[in-house]
Amino acid sequence: MSGEQFLRYGGNTPCIEVRCGAEVLIFDAGSGLREAGLSLMSEGVSEFDVFFTHTHYDHIIGLPYFKPIYRCSSAVRFWSGHLHGTMSTAEMINDFMRPPWFPVGPGICQASLDTVDFRPGDTLSPRKDVSIRTMSLVHPGGCVGYRVDWGGRAVALIYDTEHEPGILDPTLLDFIADADLLVYDCTYLESEMAAYRGYGHSTGIHGSRLAMAAGIPRLAMFHHDPSRTDAALAAIEQEVQAFFAGAFAARDHQVIDL
Amino acid sequence: MSGEQFLRYGGNTPCIEVRCGAEVLIFDAGSGLREAGLSLMSEGVSEFDVFFTHTHYDHIIGLPYFKPIYRCSSAVRFWSGHLHGTMSTAEMINDFMRPPWFPVGPGICQASLDTVDFRPGDTLSPRKDVSIRTMSLVHPGGCVGYRVDWGGRAVALIYDTEHEPGILDPTLLDFIADADLLVYDCTYLESEMAAYRGYGHSTGIHGSRLAMAAGIPRLAMFHHDPSRTDAALAAIEQEVQAFFAGAFAARDHQVIDL
Ligand SMILES: [Zn+2]
Ligand SMILES: [Zn+2]
Ligand SMILES: [Zn+2]
Ligand SMILES: [Zn+2]
Repeated sequence: MSGEQFLRYGGNTPCIEVRCGAEVLIFDAGSGLREAGLSLMSEGVSEFDVFFTHTHYDHIIGLPYFKPIYRCSSAVRFWSGHLHGTMSTAEMINDFMRPPWFPVGPGICQASLDTVDFRPGDTLSPRKDVSIRTMSLVHPGGCVGYRVDWGGRAVALIYDTEHEPGILDPTLLDFIADADLLVYDCTYLESEMAAYRGYGHSTGIHGSRLAMAAGIPRLAMFHHDPSRTDAALAAIEQEVQAFFAGAFAARDHQVIDL
Repeated sequence: MSGEQFLRYGGNTPCIEVRCGAEVLIFDAGSGLREAGLSLMSEGVSEFDVFFTHTHYDHIIGLPYFKPIYRCSSAVRFWSGHLHGTMSTAEMINDFMRPPWFPVGPGICQASLDTVDFRPGDTLSPRKDVSIRTMSLVHPGGCVGYRVDWGGRAVALIYDTEHEPGILDPTLLDFIADADLLVYDCTYLESEMAAYRGYGHSTGIHGSRLAMAAGIPRLAMFHHDPSRTDAALAAIEQEVQAFFAGAFAARDHQVIDL
């Protein structure tokens, strides 16, 4: 989204950078990845790990515009698990970056590119002292939830998932337990859920219930419906905050210290 | 692009609606198509013709978010010519809208969908009294230029193309001759062209030369480099205007009467 009604919360699609000390991890390659690449390069970062939750267009469209892949001085590793058994991470990237959708294939990339395939449920160790747990979420075609633990702090990234009304999934509760921050799919309002069963998304109220039950102090409402204006999002944020004071609507370029 | 530095000119990717009286024609399915679909539906439009210049991601990413394709009350026709001989328009759409990039295929669309394949150079007659000429442009993987003639007025849409420095292509000059408006690829500055030879884009100064030589009073500078801020675009617009007073930088939601 673009335009003054969409300025406050921003219009980029999912891409979150998680920093563990000097280590930089990137979760999803939404349109925000273009700017993230430029800013990380100007900081001198040259080693990148990019984890895919899944590869619906909103989560991968930034990939060809991520400048570090074209620089011989960068090393980029791509991780994915949602296509386990059907397509490898390398096959997926080759199929995405090609004519007629993009002028060139990944062969043109001068960076050292590497891919890792995992199974949802695996625990990953991409960098020293960083542990990442993974789990399957409920989304058409699959989606992977990530939990990053480092230095006694934890963030749970639950990007695209659908809940059973009235049920707090015990596997998910265990997965996110005691994290410092829950980033959660808040695409819909409670009143909209019935009309969108099967679309694979959830609500801010359900995210709040999960955060409270799992002992998590803060909830970043994420994956906003793209048609919500700033006014609509502010109203939704207020309503969810009245239910759970730790909730807030995530914004483009927002930085959160844990 | 999204954010306050990108507000004035907007951050949507290519999608232009051309109206010939009551007839609505759409050129490219960039991110602007999502909003265009909503606004056209609310106006009661139910018959859509969407023409592709080519299908690099920035020109097609809005397609799955174009609501009319999901409504049984709409009729949508897609036209393309840039893949002539390699892939039909129907094959292209089937390959674009599918897992793992989109949850569902075009089979889910309830609209009556139709596709037309043409050869660049063909003249198309999509609606009564509307004549559209086509020509091949210079862009990796091909791109089609369109010229829409209706009621004695004409607009030339030259989205993605590269020029030979110092040369005004006579075929292109003939194609755009005496149009009322030229929409032209102004991605780069003159000073950047040397570094981006072969990328398939052009400049505002070259577009101005073409407009002046072809007797066209107005030039919409189009296909801005996504990293330009409002300040950078305003500076570029001013520089090109000093060279050709009919030039202006195209903006999201801008309406131009011919
Ligand atoms: Zn998705
Ligand atoms: Zn999504
Ligand atoms: Zn292109
Ligand atoms: Zn383009």
